[in-house]
Amino acid sequence: MATAEFDLIARIRARAALQEMQRGDVVLGIGDDAALLQVPAGMQLVVAMDTLNAGVHFPPETDPHDIGWKALAVNLSDLAAMGARPAWCTLSLSMPDADAGFVDAFLDGFLALGAEHDVVLVGGDTSRGPLSVCVTAHGWVEPGQALRRDGARVGDDIWISGTLGDAAGALAQWQAGIAIDPTLRLRLDRPSPRVALGRALCGLAHACIDVSDGLLADLGHVCAASGVGAQLDVDALPASDALRAAFGSDRLSVMQAGGGDDYELCFSAAPSARISVQAAAASAAAAVTRIGVVTAGGGVIASDSAGAAWSPPTAGWVHFG
Amino acid sequence: MATAEFDLIARIRARAALQEMQRGDVVLGIGDDAALLQVPAGMQLVVAMDTLNAGVHFPPETDPHDIGWKALAVNLSDLAAMGARPAWCTLSLSMPDADAGFVDAFLDGFLALGAEHDVVLVGGDTSRGPLSVCVTAHGWVEPGQALRRDGARVGDDIWISGTLGDAAGALAQWQAGIAIDPTLRLRLDRPSPRVALGRALCGLAHACIDVSDGLLADLGHVCAASGVGAQLDVDALPASDALRAAFGSDRLSVMQAGGGDDYELCFSAAPSARISVQAAAASAAAAVTRIGVVTAGGGVIASDSAGAAWSPPTAGWVHFG
Repeated sequence: MATAEFDLIARIRARAALQEMQRGDVVLGIGDDAALLQVPAGMQLVVAMDTLNAGVHFPPETDPHDIGWKALAVNLSDLAAMGARPAWCTLSLSMPDADAGFVDAFLDGFLALGAEHDVVLVGGDTSRGPLSVCVTAHGWVEPGQALRRDGARVGDDIWISGTLGDAAGALAQWQAGIAIDPTLRLRLDRPSPRVALGRALCGLAHACIDVSDGLLADLGHVCAASGVGAQLDVDALPASDALRAAFGSDRLSVMQAGGGDDYELCFSAAPSARISVQAAAASAAAAVTRIGVVTAGGGVIASDSAGAAWSPPTAGWVHFG
Repeated sequence: MATAEFDLIARIRARAALQEMQRGDVVLGIGDDAALLQVPAGMQLVVAMDTLNAGVHFPPETDPHDIGWKALAVNLSDLAAMGARPAWCTLSLSMPDADAGFVDAFLDGFLALGAEHDVVLVGGDTSRGPLSVCVTAHGWVEPGQALRRDGARVGDDIWISGTLGDAAGALAQWQAGIAIDPTLRLRLDRPSPRVALGRALCGLAHACIDVSDGLLADLGHVCAASGVGAQLDVDALPASDALRAAFGSDRLSVMQAGGGDDYELCFSAAPSARISVQAAAASAAAAVTRIGVVTAGGGVIASDSAGAAWSPPTAGWVHFG
């Protein structure tokens, strides 16, 4: 069913307006040339932007509900990695046809995740083009409290939230043409951004990143930004029961260390803060696991718990090349 | 030449960093999970987001410099229409291949326009996918001073900045396979967002919109949002010498009233403010022309200067349908 762009925007606007009323800081939402927003006095604005393209970031046949959910989730995960409190988002949706059914299902997923985090859709556009979803997420953080990549210190513990490799496991099953474990599939299609954990880590973590390209690659970004190295214990990486049930230990480690789309937080903190970190995680209803230490040498060195060097066949997901 | 995504981001980051240093309000730019920005105390944040897709919004063979310029221009035009002062932008660039030469030329155009308006690139991403450019532009405005679509009042003058139809003229020449007039082409490929005019109209204009979908369509949006109508004098619409030289008067009117991609500001103001409007325009080095009046009836009614009804073959550019 083809629908004119303005009708689509009206459709999106009507649904977003219901959530908009629940926030007092949206002066003007969808429907003008731009949105008008009120950042709380004294706070720093935090802005993340990420695009998902069909056939690159998700299979074209993905449920539109999941596409909507994930497009917002990957952006909220970036805000979480900064320790920011999310507030608003904008959406640019390109579609081959103006398909109202697709848009409705897409919004179901997008707005459901938004409602979980009190994030309101305030603007954007719709265009004709290959299926592509670009989202900008906005939030704020207390000045000086943002979790950055460049603050890791030699001797810090390295921590990871949740479990690793689940999305990579789902993708491996999909690529092998076998039934995808529903637990793993949910982790691939509807990741849960660690917003509460990021907030709880402000003032505790020295550095933080969300794991989207794979643990080794993303931890490497932290090391490069901080001018430090990392020693990682591959056997300490947390795995879900579903992943352990589906794959042998060798493939497991590869998925945990090199797979992408985890959307867990990898962060460093002083060893003296271990109890505080555990308490912060508990307050955010998140599990956290110590997986290594920050070293003076550059780069990430992985070994098993016996101390033998370990290296994966690939270092992460590279979109280009 | 294929380049890994991280190399592309490093390339973009190095060039953006040069401009970033010129602003004191970018706490953290490209290179972390999100940007950290400082909105001036007491100001309202203004956010616009627009995407340009190859083959839909520009011919695929368009000069990358022009694609970069225009992708930022259409967003700054939205901020201009709100009366906002632009400050920062984010860029999501999808490309079939990681082509460093394309990115360099694209950035030449993008950053040149940014420099004109002191707008800094602070974040975003690069992805593999069909050529698509999504930009979010951020600025601010004094509370209560934003130019909105919903403030037009019965009896207001309707004004337009600059000239109309130039981009449509260039497109018509391109579609006809004839040489494109260089003046018209520049208007299509490198529009100048009316940022200074938008700022100067704060407190003067009752309603404002930028003309991107065509004057009749965009003025229709103002009328719908304001609950008013408009009476337009087609013969009063300003045309460039280049457009007059290239097209007869009948086609001229169609391009002026119905063409898109003008990126001029259409605004309403009280008749008692005519001298002030002209002074504001002069201070912004922009020409403005009165083209009609706001009426109590709904919709836009166009006539020629003799009063005869006038209607175009199309009412604007609709992306879908």
